[in-house]
Amino acid sequence: MRLSRYFLPVLKEAPSDAQIASHQLMLRAGMIRQEAAGIYAWLPLGLRVLNRIEQIVREEMDRAGAIELLMPTLQLADLWRESGRYDAYGPEMLRITDRHERELLYGPTNEEMITEIFRGSVKSYKDLPKNLYHVQWKFRDERRPRFGVMRGREFLMKDAYSFDLDADGARKSYNRMFVAYLNLFSRMGLKAVPMRADTGPIGGDLSHEFIVLAETGESAVFCHKDLVEMDAPGPDVDWYGDLQALVDQRTALYAATEEMHDEAAFSAVPEGDRLSARGIEVGHIFSFGTKYSEPMRALVTGPDGKDVPVQMGSYGVGVSRLLGAIIEASHDDAGIIWPESVAPFDVGIINMRQGDAACDAACEAAYKALTAAGKTVLYDDTDARGGAKFATMDLIGLPWQMIIGPKGIAEGVVEIKNRATGERSTASLDSVLAGLIQSKAG
Amino acid sequence: MRLSRYFLPVLKEAPSDAQIASHQLMLRAGMIRQEAAGIYAWLPLGLRVLNRIEQIVREEMDRAGAIELLMPTLQLADLWRESGRYDAYGPEMLRITDRHERELLYGPTNEEMITEIFRGSVKSYKDLPKNLYHVQWKFRDERRPRFGVMRGREFLMKDAYSFDLDADGARKSYNRMFVAYLNLFSRMGLKAVPMRADTGPIGGDLSHEFIVLAETGESAVFCHKDLVEMDAPGPDVDWYGDLQALVDQRTALYAATEEMHDEAAFSAVPEGDRLSARGIEVGHIFSFGTKYSEPMRALVTGPDGKDVPVQMGSYGVGVSRLLGAIIEASHDDAGIIWPESVAPFDVGIINMRQGDAACDAACEAAYKALTAAGKTVLYDDTDARGGAKFATMDLIGLPWQMIIGPKGIAEGVVEIKNRATGERSTASLDSVLAGLIQSKAG
Repeated sequence: MRLSRYFLPVLKEAPSDAQIASHQLMLRAGMIRQEAAGIYAWLPLGLRVLNRIEQIVREEMDRAGAIELLMPTLQLADLWRESGRYDAYGPEMLRITDRHERELLYGPTNEEMITEIFRGSVKSYKDLPKNLYHVQWKFRDERRPRFGVMRGREFLMKDAYSFDLDADGARKSYNRMFVAYLNLFSRMGLKAVPMRADTGPIGGDLSHEFIVLAETGESAVFCHKDLVEMDAPGPDVDWYGDLQALVDQRTALYAATEEMHDEAAFSAVPEGDRLSARGIEVGHIFSFGTKYSEPMRALVTGPDGKDVPVQMGSYGVGVSRLLGAIIEASHDDAGIIWPESVAPFDVGIINMRQGDAACDAACEAAYKALTAAGKTVLYDDTDARGGAKFATMDLIGLPWQMIIGPKGIAEGVVEIKNRATGERSTASLDSVLAGLIQSKAG
Repeated sequence: MRLSRYFLPVLKEAPSDAQIASHQLMLRAGMIRQEAAGIYAWLPLGLRVLNRIEQIVREEMDRAGAIELLMPTLQLADLWRESGRYDAYGPEMLRITDRHERELLYGPTNEEMITEIFRGSVKSYKDLPKNLYHVQWKFRDERRPRFGVMRGREFLMKDAYSFDLDADGARKSYNRMFVAYLNLFSRMGLKAVPMRADTGPIGGDLSHEFIVLAETGESAVFCHKDLVEMDAPGPDVDWYGDLQALVDQRTALYAATEEMHDEAAFSAVPEGDRLSARGIEVGHIFSFGTKYSEPMRALVTGPDGKDVPVQMGSYGVGVSRLLGAIIEASHDDAGIIWPESVAPFDVGIINMRQGDAACDAACEAAYKALTAAGKTVLYDDTDARGGAKFATMDLIGLPWQMIIGPKGIAEGVVEIKNRATGERSTASLDSVLAGLIQSKAG
């Protein structure tokens, strides 16, 4: 993409109501624009990152055997009356009346609707297990929206729902999502720690939040420090086998959010291993048995010919919130530092003297070669000053910057800078291109 | 995808309120499920087609120089008061009040919001032309939703917005979208005819609808029959050059929707060339000058230093509606016939005797080989009877069916069927696979 044709409205200063780094940086980098309290437009740069995060989530769900569908944003109030949650949900639910005075709501989550879809067609244990998920915009009418996309009102969530005949199957489905979550957050460069969590309005008795540690986290968390450094299992696990050992390895160590914190149990952790910090919730998984299937009559016939309510769980990832969490975990004074897996472009090219024939030719050659090799490139072909171009590239945080100026070109070299390490080196255009093309990202 | 693990709730009969073929077939093929009047869940098979159509639209927008962003579904009422449309829009606008009594609405279109985004950052003619688009769920509170996704309430639309300094630039932007639309509908196997159209609540004086001819079309249309057979220009046009000739070639011939129909002008068309038919609107483009930029003060500084309201146009494609239009144009008594470019899977494999070692092995080998070659495959590995498997495959309309049965395997052959032509042939597994892998689709 040529910057001269792009739409990247960077700001010199963030508005004063942006209190945390990720909110400030997303506004300054031209990624989002507030359209109402807690409601944002995703500008082109922000949308590119959102799409990449969504795609990683999708790939890991598919790998774990979940099937994608897409439920609508609006739901019937009557559906929520079947579960009893319509009255219980409170003012965070956005309630809507249409032209025929029918009561609708903007879905904050989809347990009721997926149960309705399931009961409409699945009748036998032979069709189980099933895990159905979607990635859709949700709305929660937060009393005080803040921190940009971290606590917005209209937000993008991936929510998966599992269906099993019995508690043993439900536990296996829960474990599959537990392991898939370890992998998907890891692919985004995040250390997300699973912690015992309160089940809140979703319900059930088994629940984990996946927490990214960050000073600006909204809640206090307590865990064994080994959990933070534990590697994700990776894709080559036996998804339909027994994943319990992988889960136990994590749940054996103390980890709890504030609501579930047990000071006595925590003090049994050796003092040097105790970590008390602040965290950002990026995922939340629940096993809630028949909480919805029983009142909503989602029954399956077992091998014994008897009908039983299906065992369910639900599994959420805050897709739009993840941008904030990643930036909180990865930025410096100059701007964002994107992990390669979610960066909006792989490489930025800075033309230090736009209009200079040799510089233009070298930049064009680099742009074409990288694009042809499948790399995504943002080419700053504007007539801004070099200093302003450097500042913008650092702000938007692309992993690699190629700097092409008249002095270097005269000497036959270009400069390459790694945004994360700040390391710079000079080499011939061809060897810099070869290095970028061989790197795995992109 | 193995059907035994998929979620494909096909129905024997469509509900009686489904009046047209596309609505009936989408319900029967397990593509959609109604969640409220005019509000549908997209089941896995339907979502796959929706995603492919969306991706074709996106590629053609990008090719024509448009930049993707994503605006939220909910908008502030006050924004629509700036243009004067809040009161004018009528009962089709879904109006919402949040917990703090702020007035919101579920966006039926985005002229106001994109104008607000534009005026917030673009100030100079040097940044023009710009074309910004998004693909987002919209809501129009139709009095009588019907025909499935053809006239739903919550629907997916691609809407692009162009910004130019003057009328000449605006015309060029309009022409780029005109040509992009010819290409994108053509890629989906549709013959979409551009017709002079009424501008309705969007406004402006230049507007074309893109119409697919179908007996079940909602409105009467009139055109020169040559327009239906004219080929799309294809991707290799000079996008930043002069596209007027390509546009003139189409607009020189008579074509108008009912609202714009001029019987006298139509009767000047030679009688044998007159086509009066019914049509489905799949796209609608508008040039409306300063209708929004003037009241909303979206000004740009021209080369002469003077501020002028920016010239705008908007360009819609009914993404979810397109599924209905394609099915209306391409089905038979047995079911849907997907064009290869939008099919949910490229190939279906029918195992005629699940559990037979030789059949299972041949099916597995075919499934693996096709998947490894980048084809998408739905493998019917269930224990349903052969007749039921044939009926399902015909119903869901995948372009190719591979039929693998014990008799053929004993003779060293499998059967391949083309869904569109009904043509069947038998050959060795290897040669059938080689043929499928070499075909361009997928």
